Amino acid sequence: MQENLQKERIILGIDPGTAVMGYGLVKETGNKIELINLGVIKMESLDDHMLKLQRIFEKTVHLINNYHPDCLAIEAPFYGKNIQVMLKLGRAQGVAMAAALSRNVSITEYSPRKIKQAITGNGNATKEQVAAMLQNLLKFKETPEFLDATDGLAVAVCHSFQKLPTGKSGSKKSYSGWETFVKDNQNRVSGLKIKK
Amino acid sequence: MQENLQKERIILGIDPGTAVMGYGLVKETGNKIELINLGVIKMESLDDHMLKLQRIFEKTVHLINNYHPDCLAIEAPFYGKNIQVMLKLGRAQGVAMAAALSRNVSITEYSPRKIKQAITGNGNATKEQVAAMLQNLLKFKETPEFLDATDGLAVAVCHSFQKLPTGKSGSKKSYSGWETFVKDNQNRVSGLKIKK
Repeated sequence: MQENLQKERIILGIDPGTAVMGYGLVKETGNKIELINLGVIKMESLDDHMLKLQRIFEKTVHLINNYHPDCLAIEAPFYGKNIQVMLKLGRAQGVAMAAALSRNVSITEYSPRKIKQAITGNGNATKEQVAAMLQNLLKFKETPEFLDATDGLAVAVCHSFQKLPTGKSGSKKSYSGWETFVKDNQNRVSGLKIKK
Repeated sequence: MQENLQKERIILGIDPGTAVMGYGLVKETGNKIELINLGVIKMESLDDHMLKLQRIFEKTVHLINNYHPDCLAIEAPFYGKNIQVMLKLGRAQGVAMAAALSRNVSITEYSPRKIKQAITGNGNATKEQVAAMLQNLLKFKETPEFLDATDGLAVAVCHSFQKLPTGKSGSKKSYSGWETFVKDNQNRVSGLKIKK
């Protein structure tokens, strides 16, 4: 029932904020998914808002130049309590998007709820639950900046889940979580190529 | 009393929005200011939010590549009624800023009130009043997209007003409007080089 797509696709997932930006890179090969890298970019030490935006832009360009992703998936909250915070968040998102736009990398945005839902099956999952699911899937070790980095990685994996073929029909669907994903894709999970 | 600075500086002023972006370019030569260009970039015809952001980024890069401005001055409202609108505005600002950051062009932001105050002496001036002042100063004709374009031009002129030397001391001040500016700078106004 499984399509044998050997097309390779690299997905860069980012969760941009004005203090920390988490990122993760995964590679799909056919119907396998493997971790390339994950990490964080820190802006706390920078006083100036414009310097923070510059770092987000430059680091995102750097990630794109280094890993040549085919697409950027971005975590984009659509609401918030504070107008000021949302304006700054919009700017952080904007400069990260511009990095992709400047390299002709397509952009897809996902709400935090959608990402949590895709990874864990629960739109209200905690960061820890999302991270645990990702560790299970991609077999990597904790780092000091673990939870910020996994926020970025989660977006990349969420994007991969949207696009992977689910059957002969080639129809796409949004996975409602790891359990559904495992149930639907026994052959894929057991065949996961994990980067050591 | 006047400093004789012949340093040339090109200022790009923009007023980024998600429907229309106004822009204006001025050149300071020593203590003279002249109009280079003004215009609008329209995004209304684009359905997709990402395409709008792409157009803002590309057109801003295009303006920078064409005119080689030394600095970007940007109109940046810091508040608004609607969280969604502010997020989108933040993104529009972010991609325009990224265009400047990618070309090492310095960025200064001004609130709408500050710009109106600098140009007309009244922080609550109408677009028409701001435009009339700019026409007086820079001697240009109305265009169909007049008021959107002058919003961008106003930011460039506001930035110029902040930086121009005001006397022997070299101290900088924010001009409180055209009348004060004329009073303080009789020699400069009569010597304005206007681009035909």
